[in-house]
Amino acid sequence: MKKISTLFASVLLLINGSFVRADEGMWTFDNPPLKQWKERYNFEPTKGWLEKLRLASVRLSDGGSASFVSPNGLIVTNQHVANGQLAKMSTKAKDYVKDGFYARTQAEEVKAADIEANVLLSFEDVTAGVQSSAKSGVSDKAAAEQRKAASAEIEKDCVAKTGLKCEVVSFYSGGEYWLYRFKKYTDIRIVFAPEEQTSFFGGDYDNFTYPRYCLDVAFLRAYENGKPAATPDYFKFSETGAGDEEFVVLPGNPGSTARLSTLAQLAYQRDVGNPLQKKSWETRLAANEAYAKLGAEQERQASPNIRSLRNALKRLAGQQEGLLNPRQFGKKEAEEKDLLAGLAKQLELNRQYAPAWGDVTRAYQALPKMADRIAFSTLEYSRIGKIAQQLVRYGNEVQKPNDQRLADYRDNRLESLKLTMLSPATIYPDLEAAILAGWLNEAVKTLGRGDPFVRAALGDVDVGEVVNRAVKETKLYDVAFRRSLVDGGADAITRSTDPMVTLARRVEPVWRELKEWNDTNILSVESSAGEKISKARFAVYGKSIPPDANFNLRIAYGRVKGYEEDTTLVPAWTTFYGLYDRGLSFKETPPYDIPQRFKDKRNSFQLSMPLNFVYTADTIGGTSGAPVVNRSGEFVGINFDSNIQKLSNRYWYVEEEEGGRAVGVHSAGILEALRKVYETQELVAELTAK
Amino acid sequence: MKKISTLFASVLLLINGSFVRADEGMWTFDNPPLKQWKERYNFEPTKGWLEKLRLASVRLSDGGSASFVSPNGLIVTNQHVANGQLAKMSTKAKDYVKDGFYARTQAEEVKAADIEANVLLSFEDVTAGVQSSAKSGVSDKAAAEQRKAASAEIEKDCVAKTGLKCEVVSFYSGGEYWLYRFKKYTDIRIVFAPEEQTSFFGGDYDNFTYPRYCLDVAFLRAYENGKPAATPDYFKFSETGAGDEEFVVLPGNPGSTARLSTLAQLAYQRDVGNPLQKKSWETRLAANEAYAKLGAEQERQASPNIRSLRNALKRLAGQQEGLLNPRQFGKKEAEEKDLLAGLAKQLELNRQYAPAWGDVTRAYQALPKMADRIAFSTLEYSRIGKIAQQLVRYGNEVQKPNDQRLADYRDNRLESLKLTMLSPATIYPDLEAAILAGWLNEAVKTLGRGDPFVRAALGDVDVGEVVNRAVKETKLYDVAFRRSLVDGGADAITRSTDPMVTLARRVEPVWRELKEWNDTNILSVESSAGEKISKARFAVYGKSIPPDANFNLRIAYGRVKGYEEDTTLVPAWTTFYGLYDRGLSFKETPPYDIPQRFKDKRNSFQLSMPLNFVYTADTIGGTSGAPVVNRSGEFVGINFDSNIQKLSNRYWYVEEEEGGRAVGVHSAGILEALRKVYETQELVAELTAK
Repeated sequence: MKKISTLFASVLLLINGSFVRADEGMWTFDNPPLKQWKERYNFEPTKGWLEKLRLASVRLSDGGSASFVSPNGLIVTNQHVANGQLAKMSTKAKDYVKDGFYARTQAEEVKAADIEANVLLSFEDVTAGVQSSAKSGVSDKAAAEQRKAASAEIEKDCVAKTGLKCEVVSFYSGGEYWLYRFKKYTDIRIVFAPEEQTSFFGGDYDNFTYPRYCLDVAFLRAYENGKPAATPDYFKFSETGAGDEEFVVLPGNPGSTARLSTLAQLAYQRDVGNPLQKKSWETRLAANEAYAKLGAEQERQASPNIRSLRNALKRLAGQQEGLLNPRQFGKKEAEEKDLLAGLAKQLELNRQYAPAWGDVTRAYQALPKMADRIAFSTLEYSRIGKIAQQLVRYGNEVQKPNDQRLADYRDNRLESLKLTMLSPATIYPDLEAAILAGWLNEAVKTLGRGDPFVRAALGDVDVGEVVNRAVKETKLYDVAFRRSLVDGGADAITRSTDPMVTLARRVEPVWRELKEWNDTNILSVESSAGEKISKARFAVYGKSIPPDANFNLRIAYGRVKGYEEDTTLVPAWTTFYGLYDRGLSFKETPPYDIPQRFKDKRNSFQLSMPLNFVYTADTIGGTSGAPVVNRSGEFVGINFDSNIQKLSNRYWYVEEEEGGRAVGVHSAGILEALRKVYETQELVAELTAK
Repeated sequence: MKKISTLFASVLLLINGSFVRADEGMWTFDNPPLKQWKERYNFEPTKGWLEKLRLASVRLSDGGSASFVSPNGLIVTNQHVANGQLAKMSTKAKDYVKDGFYARTQAEEVKAADIEANVLLSFEDVTAGVQSSAKSGVSDKAAAEQRKAASAEIEKDCVAKTGLKCEVVSFYSGGEYWLYRFKKYTDIRIVFAPEEQTSFFGGDYDNFTYPRYCLDVAFLRAYENGKPAATPDYFKFSETGAGDEEFVVLPGNPGSTARLSTLAQLAYQRDVGNPLQKKSWETRLAANEAYAKLGAEQERQASPNIRSLRNALKRLAGQQEGLLNPRQFGKKEAEEKDLLAGLAKQLELNRQYAPAWGDVTRAYQALPKMADRIAFSTLEYSRIGKIAQQLVRYGNEVQKPNDQRLADYRDNRLESLKLTMLSPATIYPDLEAAILAGWLNEAVKTLGRGDPFVRAALGDVDVGEVVNRAVKETKLYDVAFRRSLVDGGADAITRSTDPMVTLARRVEPVWRELKEWNDTNILSVESSAGEKISKARFAVYGKSIPPDANFNLRIAYGRVKGYEEDTTLVPAWTTFYGLYDRGLSFKETPPYDIPQRFKDKRNSFQLSMPLNFVYTADTIGGTSGAPVVNRSGEFVGINFDSNIQKLSNRYWYVEEEEGGRAVGVHSAGILEALRKVYETQELVAELTAK
């Protein structure tokens, strides 16, 4: 029985005294891992290579990554990233999630309801400006407000100068601030998606597992001024795809990690945060599942929520398992100890920064007793409730000076906000009622009838009655009505008697009170302490560790590589043969039914083509849809998942030797399926044009 | 993430106060689990059904199980059980292990070198006679000798009366003795075997894993008087095979379990026995592997040993992992405690039987310091060394009265003994030299030059020189020479100057001394104590637990059923699609190369046919080759392996909920492959004759 250790040599790179594991890291474009690439893969990209990598990469506002794959705005992402938009363009009569979609001509491409695509055009270090804006000696809260105002000012200037979407982004918990300038596309159209049974074969069971057999891919197109956008920076689609041991780079937008958290923050996640998050998602899942059982149409309506919540819960379970593992948690303890020991050697810095850990610990001591309230005092998990809350908040915020507003309500972000508030996507009242009622019932159970949010939302009335009135009688389903409120501004919104708007207005003060508490007691402390801890980290290790993920563009990298599991080998690829094997092995019991199209075409294509593949790159939710790019800058696959071994990657990089892998769809398999199974020759021609 | 516990209800059957888990047990034919079948599967077989089950079941002397599948002596077993005989009929020019074999006519069937097939014709409880033969008050050793003499007498009478192969078999460590009467077939011919790459796809990596894609099947035929044996009791080959959740029965010959061992015995296994066994197998594996590296022909010669030793080591690692698991070992502690507590309630029995545990514990305290000597003082791991030792021992034993001989040298067993001593199979001197030298070198290292065995074997001479002389100059390769020694008896053997015979003669007294020590200090104590512990067990639980396995016919049962692993499902079947998927996923890197025949026939058969499948039956090494039989008494598959979850089954039944499964080849897949891939129409016609 060969042991893993005899097959893989553990490779550690010693950089400025800090251990960064081979292939670890979601790196910012200002600090790409060039040293590691050179040493480990003998790869030295040109400046132009890196620039193209960035300019061909796309962030999608639905929470995923994507990339340009033709000069005419063609975007590739995952079906599961496009899933929400596919659902929004579906009706009872035509279900594009279930059946897939293909626009043979550009005229047939369908505009997505409310998704925005961003490309990071340039970035600039504004750390000095933001950090120095906070006057010394002021409270954490005042300092946070001063930094916020400085950031707003920088963004505003940027918009005025460039006309771009400008955001000041905090890294290393406030250790750095960067101004990111984005090109923004708001006219995104759907080109192609396979039926969900092919993109999500094996469903929730096989989610986060490998070997895997999912064609999780979809094509969109960015338009400008009613025409396909010109996108000269794009990835050429590789016919051969990634080879074994091949070096690959993934530019993507990882959503969130907590690897630089203090032990107090991690312990809070483990003991309070994650269990509460679980309860929140389970509450919503239960409401959606109960609704889906009412019939096929109800199932169609709830299906995207169910898929997404099950995915979130499965990932959370893996993360929590990691935190609960004493050996793993022990590593974090050792890391913190090592950092503090390194800091202690520099007396003056130690005096300045060491207290920050205690500040965070003390702040977090107050959080558990507020956590339920903060989690449950919201209507946002019903779509109509979220729109109502956004409208009410919009009415309040636009009255304030720009630099004092909530970040999402600053002038430079209003266009993006309106895209969601004014989305034409159909909203289903019965589903909304089910979700909101389920949520409020759980809120009552958790917080009690005397809780301020519960009282504001319900008064002495039953959940059913409140929901019924708000959800059934509201006119917010009508986009024109929403627009009239936006156009009417604070006045119109304040005076509105729409029952969902009034519900949102009633709970808004509670939300503000809780936000104020959280800002003052947690976020400001974290922000000030985070800056100190980051400075301590830089002093001890240099900038050798990338910042935690925050849904901005990062570079991950690694190599295509199978792994050992128990006593056997797991291959670097799977093939289409495996799709048939797994389906037939379960007698096609859902979720293992073989899509009809694949039954029909079984003898018409090469089943030996690679379908999915794995690589060592450091990814997390949000990197879904990121292109897998080879040395030549070609698209060799698309990232869509991680295996089960990797699920604790929110808190640490799961090493190659532990079998942690990201999972992608192979470009050769995509082309084979498009050509022979879907017969989308126009799309293939565009992808493979010389 | 569904938890296993929500999918499977744990089913326990309460029988006479003892918990036996659902589908647990390798039951003797005198005590079939009829109650469980009725309660759990609503199955009540007729007496005839059970009789046919027994009479169609075959034990093979190479250590596996098999069954008749036609009225003309056709036997099905695993390729890996027939592997040794296939190797013995192979030459440098023609490798039947690698290439497979098919005899289109009976005339083309090749006689196997030295395998014997047994069918259990009848059995009789002789417990009273054997147990009462031991006079009360005598030493454990004297009692053991008295029981041995009584057993020999019973066997002798049986042979005289029936002409059958008769064996008195001990169960429950001497708690019961049964006379087993076997029909014996010594003319076994090879009919069909696939190439090893198909029967052993995935090699040692995939061994003991599932999902799996191995056509581990071979066909033999029993002959009598030069003609195919008439075997009216046989299993009809099922075209459809086993269905999901289907109840199945496996009559097979599980080799050895240690489930009724005392904690002292288990602790010895864990701390001394298993590590020593590992060292022994690793020593032999290293010698074989080094030899195999010398060239293709050497690799061919050593290949069966390597496969078998790797298999043994992988299984041992799993068993040891089980014993080292405190939770699992804790269960055994609880079991012993429960039995002792039950016994304590019956004062008189407690007085008689409770001391037995202490007797075993005390005996085992002496074993560790002798264990290395007992393990290493042998030549038997080289084939020529084993034959020499058998000859020398034969010369000594045949001079004694029948009832005082070693069991294998009693008159009624001499024919079986001669089958191996006089086997015509080619023996390769260079391989023998490599194995024997590797073994003796390790013996010197472990025991030291002053050890009695080492001194007897080597004197002051180098290992290389002794081995060279004995292995290279011996005439034992010549069967006629061996026969002349057997025919010459004690005299000829004692006077022989053949260097391998003289080597065996030199070490024989050491072996006898160690055997004497072991018989006196361990086995006799175990036997006496075992009888008491069994009586205690019967008193507390009744005969509700089957005895430990001892390579005699047992009945296992269960149902076809997939399982959960991590967060996903493992199917009850695999299909031929999976063979291609796994092979191509590894780019056909060995051991994942797709057999040429399957490449050629890829479009000529139904890849959707089930290939392997899993079921909950309680099996262990030795059950390899056992038929999987449905309610109608049809052959629906053949057992060939277990999954990794089940590897600790030597010590306990691994429950359905823990994912423990036996793995078989599906009858529908076998027929499809025979028909379309191997085109063995004659064999198929015989299997499917109405």
